[in-house]
Amino acid sequence: MNSLQSVLEKVRQKPNLRIAVAAAEDKDVLRAVEEACDSSIAQFLLFGDESRMKAITDRERISLSSGVEIRHVPDLNEACRQAVMSVQTGEADIVMKGLVDTSLILKAVLDREHGLRDHGVLSHVAVFEVPGAERLWLVTDAAMHIAPTLEQKVEIIKNAAAVARSLNIEIPRVAPIAAIEKVNPDMPATVDAALLSKMAERGQIPGVEVDGPLALDNAISPQAAEHKGIKSRVAGKADILLLPDIESGNVLYKSLTIVAGARVGGIVVGGRAPVIVTSRADTHETKMYAIALAVMTAYRSYQEMKPLVHL
Amino acid sequence: MNSLQSVLEKVRQKPNLRIAVAAAEDKDVLRAVEEACDSSIAQFLLFGDESRMKAITDRERISLSSGVEIRHVPDLNEACRQAVMSVQTGEADIVMKGLVDTSLILKAVLDREHGLRDHGVLSHVAVFEVPGAERLWLVTDAAMHIAPTLEQKVEIIKNAAAVARSLNIEIPRVAPIAAIEKVNPDMPATVDAALLSKMAERGQIPGVEVDGPLALDNAISPQAAEHKGIKSRVAGKADILLLPDIESGNVLYKSLTIVAGARVGGIVVGGRAPVIVTSRADTHETKMYAIALAVMTAYRSYQEMKPLVHL
Repeated sequence: MNSLQSVLEKVRQKPNLRIAVAAAEDKDVLRAVEEACDSSIAQFLLFGDESRMKAITDRERISLSSGVEIRHVPDLNEACRQAVMSVQTGEADIVMKGLVDTSLILKAVLDREHGLRDHGVLSHVAVFEVPGAERLWLVTDAAMHIAPTLEQKVEIIKNAAAVARSLNIEIPRVAPIAAIEKVNPDMPATVDAALLSKMAERGQIPGVEVDGPLALDNAISPQAAEHKGIKSRVAGKADILLLPDIESGNVLYKSLTIVAGARVGGIVVGGRAPVIVTSRADTHETKMYAIALAVMTAYRSYQEMKPLVHL
Repeated sequence: MNSLQSVLEKVRQKPNLRIAVAAAEDKDVLRAVEEACDSSIAQFLLFGDESRMKAITDRERISLSSGVEIRHVPDLNEACRQAVMSVQTGEADIVMKGLVDTSLILKAVLDREHGLRDHGVLSHVAVFEVPGAERLWLVTDAAMHIAPTLEQKVEIIKNAAAVARSLNIEIPRVAPIAAIEKVNPDMPATVDAALLSKMAERGQIPGVEVDGPLALDNAISPQAAEHKGIKSRVAGKADILLLPDIESGNVLYKSLTIVAGARVGGIVVGGRAPVIVTSRADTHETKMYAIALAVMTAYRSYQEMKPLVHL
C-alpha cells in the first residue's frame, strides 16, 4: 500500500471493527462517525451525553446508522473509562477521543487496573503520503514525547513497526534522524541513532532494520544517499523516520502537511488497542485516514493472536 | 524582494564587491567563480595552489576573466588566514570557503587577533524561496549551533535580522519555533521562545518583532494562525524562523529543499563580513544564491557605515 486511499479501500473490504468513542458529543466527531459508518470503515459505540449528541445530529442533519450504538455517560472521566473498558471486555476494538482532553483519554488507556497498558510507552505514529514519494512514510513521534530517552526510542520504534506491519511492510526500515550522518558525542541524536542501529543488529529491537544517524535527505532520497556515498540498507528508502525530539518531529509534520501538501493520518499506539486522537484542526480526510489506520493496526494485532480484537 | 532570482538581479545592478576565496583549487568552486564573475555578481581574489588551479581551469575549460586575481598560497591554513586578512585590509569584502574544512575557515574568521570577530557568535542563515509562499523565509540555524543557549539565540536572531535588512525587510518578524504555542516549563524551546519575545519587547533585541512560541504552521500560514485564534503580529507572516536546535533546523532545511522543492541560498553571518560556506552537495544555483546573499549583506553593512566594505 503506497497511498492512504488504498489503506481506506483495504479497510472497506474487511468486516467492520468497532470503535469506542469517549465523549462523542461533538459535531466534527459525529460527522466522522457518520461517514466512517456509511462507507463501511467501522462501527461505533458512542459514550457521552446522549441528549447533547441528539441535539447535534438533529441540528447538523447527521444520520447515524444501525452500526452506531449510544451509551449515555455524561461525565467525561467516566466516558473515557467506559470506552476503554469496552475494549477490555471485547465490545469494541479501538478507542477514539471525542470532546475531551487527550491527556484524559490517554490516562484511562494507561490506567494500571482498568486500562489497555502493554509495555507502558504510548507513542504517536503519523503516516504520510507525500507527493512524488514512492512509499508511505511513518513519522514518529511528532506529538507525545518531548525528548525521549534511548529506552523510550526503542519502544517508539516497536510501536511504529506494528503500524508498518499492518500496512504490509513486514520488516520496516527505520532511520533515526539527526542533523548529520556521523556519530558526534556532542550531538545526542547521533549517539542514540548509532546505539539503536547496533541494538537492532543484536536483536534487541526485533523485526526491523535500523540504520542511523541519517539526515532527512539521506533517509528518504536515494539520490542524496548515493551522492553522499552512504552504504546502507535503510538510506534512501526508510519506511519509519524516528525523530529525536518533539520539535524536529513537529517541524517535519507541519512542513510536510502545510508546505509539501502531503496527506496524513495518525494514531497513538503502544497500548493493547490503537487510540484515535484526531484534533479539531485536522481535516475530515485526516480523520478518516486515522480511523482506517487504527482499524488496520487492530486487525494486524488480531492476526498476531493478541487477544483483544474480537470479530 | 520575494524571490532569490530577484536578489540575483539586484546584485547584478550594483558595483561588484570582491570575494576572497580560501583554497580555490576546486572544480565546483572555480565554476562558481567563473559564472559569478561573468554575470557581474562579484569579483574574486583566489588564495590557494596556483598550479592546481591552472590545471583545473585548463582541464575543465573554465576561463577566469580579468575580475579574478590569484595569489599562490599552497598551505590551507595560510590560505584561510590570508583570505580573512584580505578583508581586514580592505582588499576584499567577503570570505568564501574553497577546498578546505568549514571549521578551518571559521577558525580564521574567529581569530581574536587577525580575524573578523564581532560579538563572537557566528551563525548560519538560509534564505528559502518556497513554492506558493508570499515571502522569503530566513531559517536559522540549520547548520552551526547544536543546541544554542538563550544568549546565543539572541545573537542568532540579530545575525539573521542583518540578512533580512539587506533584503529590504526593515523590521523582520521573528518566530521562535516550538512544537506548541503555549509556554510549557518541560519544553525548553517554548520557554526560550517566550523569553526572546519579552526581550525584544523590552528593546533587548533591537530592530525586530519577536513572537513565540509558535509551531511551524502558525508561524508561516495565516490560515492556520487564524484557525487557531492566535493574535500576533508575527504569526502567519514570519520572516525569520528561529529553530530551537540543529535537528529541527536541519529537518526543516531538508524537507523544504528535498520534499517541497524550495530554492535556497545560505551564508554564515555574525563576523564583520559574511562568509560563504557552500558544500559539495549544493547545486550550482544554490551557490550563486549564496554569493548573491553575501554581497547583499556586505552592501547593507556598508550602508550602515561599518568600516569593512570598500567600494
